[in-house]
Amino acid sequence: MSELSVNHLLGIKYLKKKDIDLIFETADHFKEVINRSIKKVPTLRDITIANIFFENSTRTKLSFELAEKRLSADVINFSASQSSVKKGETLIDTVNNILSMKVDMVVMRHPNPGAGIFLSKNVKAAIVNAGDGAHEHPTQALLDSYSIRERLGDVGGKKVVIVGDILHSRVALSNIFALQLQGAEVKVCGPKTLIPKYIESLGVTVETNLEKALQWCDVANMLRIQNERLDISYFPSTREYTQQFGLNKAMLKRLDKEIVVMHPGPINRGVEITSDVADSGQSIILDQVENGVAVRMAVIYLLASKIK
Amino acid sequence: MSELSVNHLLGIKYLKKKDIDLIFETADHFKEVINRSIKKVPTLRDITIANIFFENSTRTKLSFELAEKRLSADVINFSASQSSVKKGETLIDTVNNILSMKVDMVVMRHPNPGAGIFLSKNVKAAIVNAGDGAHEHPTQALLDSYSIRERLGDVGGKKVVIVGDILHSRVALSNIFALQLQGAEVKVCGPKTLIPKYIESLGVTVETNLEKALQWCDVANMLRIQNERLDISYFPSTREYTQQFGLNKAMLKRLDKEIVVMHPGPINRGVEITSDVADSGQSIILDQVENGVAVRMAVIYLLASKIK
Amino acid sequence: MSELSVNHLLGIKYLKKKDIDLIFETADHFKEVINRSIKKVPTLRDITIANIFFENSTRTKLSFELAEKRLSADVINFSASQSSVKKGETLIDTVNNILSMKVDMVVMRHPNPGAGIFLSKNVKAAIVNAGDGAHEHPTQALLDSYSIRERLGDVGGKKVVIVGDILHSRVALSNIFALQLQGAEVKVCGPKTLIPKYIESLGVTVETNLEKALQWCDVANMLRIQNERLDISYFPSTREYTQQFGLNKAMLKRLDKEIVVMHPGPINRGVEITSDVADSGQSIILDQVENGVAVRMAVIYLLASKIK
Repeated sequence: MSELSVNHLLGIKYLKKKDIDLIFETADHFKEVINRSIKKVPTLRDITIANIFFENSTRTKLSFELAEKRLSADVINFSASQSSVKKGETLIDTVNNILSMKVDMVVMRHPNPGAGIFLSKNVKAAIVNAGDGAHEHPTQALLDSYSIRERLGDVGGKKVVIVGDILHSRVALSNIFALQLQGAEVKVCGPKTLIPKYIESLGVTVETNLEKALQWCDVANMLRIQNERLDISYFPSTREYTQQFGLNKAMLKRLDKEIVVMHPGPINRGVEITSDVADSGQSIILDQVENGVAVRMAVIYLLASKIK
Repeated sequence: MSELSVNHLLGIKYLKKKDIDLIFETADHFKEVINRSIKKVPTLRDITIANIFFENSTRTKLSFELAEKRLSADVINFSASQSSVKKGETLIDTVNNILSMKVDMVVMRHPNPGAGIFLSKNVKAAIVNAGDGAHEHPTQALLDSYSIRERLGDVGGKKVVIVGDILHSRVALSNIFALQLQGAEVKVCGPKTLIPKYIESLGVTVETNLEKALQWCDVANMLRIQNERLDISYFPSTREYTQQFGLNKAMLKRLDKEIVVMHPGPINRGVEITSDVADSGQSIILDQVENGVAVRMAVIYLLASKIK
Repeated sequence: MSELSVNHLLGIKYLKKKDIDLIFETADHFKEVINRSIKKVPTLRDITIANIFFENSTRTKLSFELAEKRLSADVINFSASQSSVKKGETLIDTVNNILSMKVDMVVMRHPNPGAGIFLSKNVKAAIVNAGDGAHEHPTQALLDSYSIRERLGDVGGKKVVIVGDILHSRVALSNIFALQLQGAEVKVCGPKTLIPKYIESLGVTVETNLEKALQWCDVANMLRIQNERLDISYFPSTREYTQQFGLNKAMLKRLDKEIVVMHPGPINRGVEITSDVADSGQSIILDQVENGVAVRMAVIYLLASKIK
């Protein structure tokens, strides 16, 4: 039987194309099971998973928790804000303590890029990176590609533009890796100050005019504008951002084709995307959320099968 | 078989008498099961319930969680304080995101009156209102009536006085609707400034003298005085509130009958009720808490049976 | 079959030697089950346990939760910080409310010494003290002794030194009781200002020179220095503490024997213990964490069997 080429999901960077194929086929299976209203499969009854979140994240954490529970895994949640991390404990000590309680897998979000990689080299457990700083957010990229594949039949050969704050976005970076690995073309679009210098070295093209980017693409992935990071040195104001990079219905109508609209959530309605676009038939925003559970079930299931 | 006339529990206002009867008969069944030390029935194995609390609520949330777990439902908890709501997401987006993860029922507490009603019109899931601002708290009223019925045999024909801050109380309003629907007479008693003008239009009488109210009633439901809302414009001080509206043993002894004493909790001992009253045989305060789990099991069970 | 001589675990002070033996034999069984990768035993399916934490505690709470889940008990978590305790409710009312929901056992951490004892006299449920102020932390002492027994074969006859802030430590006090009950000799070592006057009346010797204490002992239990409590009146600075009472590899090498090193966690690496000591083969720090789950399973299992 097929298995992943990796023991951890640290980033899309470390995956092969066949890993993504395997994850998607497995997710297809879990999605079908869920759609038949079977909420729980007894697959991982002997697995204990710790969700360790050093940063707040409602939707990602909820999605992982549901995925874990639907696989019948035992779940323990650990939020770093209420924890001994404050008392000066190191990351490895914190995680080793949790692992000593016979935990098999760690799903971790951490503000520092590479925290998951560091951990995977120092503790005995399968690590799933649920976001490490501005570095990677691999399950988000996987569910994004899975949702494109679901809507358009395939990711290969598609043109995808990622719009917004590319500089601070782990979603952007993981998506670039995932889309390219599957043979899609990627363009980024946003204010110059929010596009990192190295982006073209990744084989990604840059476009600062949103209308032009939309004309080019099959899929537009609209990132959330993180007001807390949009300080004056990057961009004048939210309103000016919306004028230049906000997606609205009129723009979609001016195109000679029907593109697919995505957003990792949470949406700022009227900022990076208008309500009529977000709620339109071209939007697959809620499919992304739904697919997130099935894709995460697949990732956890496949990593767990390498533990035993 | 009987079923509820509604698909959501948004308020007592929307229920019929036969709905309450059905909920109580179902709760009788669950209470008997729990009393035989059967902690879990496999009834709702395929149902996922999200508890979404936009306001803190320890006891209500705990009671719902226990009810859900004892029905074997899958439970996910979402506290708005740690959530993307802060990031500017709308209520519908937040809930739709959760529902996309294949959630069948939402138990929601929200500071805004009508939040549950609004939600029920905009999302696909059964909604249980766990308190919406000063509007309704229907499961509290149901467990209150259930506890009266348990102690006195019936709610119909009984005289119930609700004592305290009626103006800010969703417990008061839901109780008024529930008691009247079952044929009880309702009086409210409290400082004039804490009794809303419209109360008499609901068929409720007003009494500002606690002793007179007690002489009249079969049941006294003592609301908690919410210090944070008792500002100077409403009432001079907590001590003066206690002098006029606090219930003590001497008052109960002066009555020529034994009335039933209730309180939705948490109690401020020595403020609205003295310890000897709260802990007396006339008090059914802990019965209320106990019955809360069975009544909530009944509500969730009956709404779930309309989903499938 | 054997059973505990107590109905609650309030402190080691109330246990007999045969209680500890029984707990350890039961923990041996659970540890073996866990080591065979059986993560869950259906033992306590009909038991509901409430974890009530009036103080933050990540690792103890996690360990109890895992123990409870592995016994298949139903678990509800109650953190006092988000609770009605703030609204002026008494401890007994809070707990009675929770118990009214048909809870069989309460695991409680509370800042006040004796809170568990008080509770056990006033509510109907088995109480497990998970730390009450500077008083006792019995499950920590049990897992510590269990880990010594595992490493050295027996606790009886061993010489154990507890190093650090003895004055504020419930871990120290519970360990003293547990070790003496099993026939070990106990010495404490630390700054004079952090050793309580009454300690010698417990049959414990005092040593303010760490090297001398190490020469004497078979086991050194290094307590965490709680910076928040180390104010100027007790001790000049963390650096000076480390110079006099921090354990490093050189000190271990100077001994003519290989002592066992323990720490209840979380570790301040470089303060009370250096990394090379904490991670050495002489350290059983992670064994302590691992054994915590099995020991807590044993305690809960044995107390539950007295309920039914």
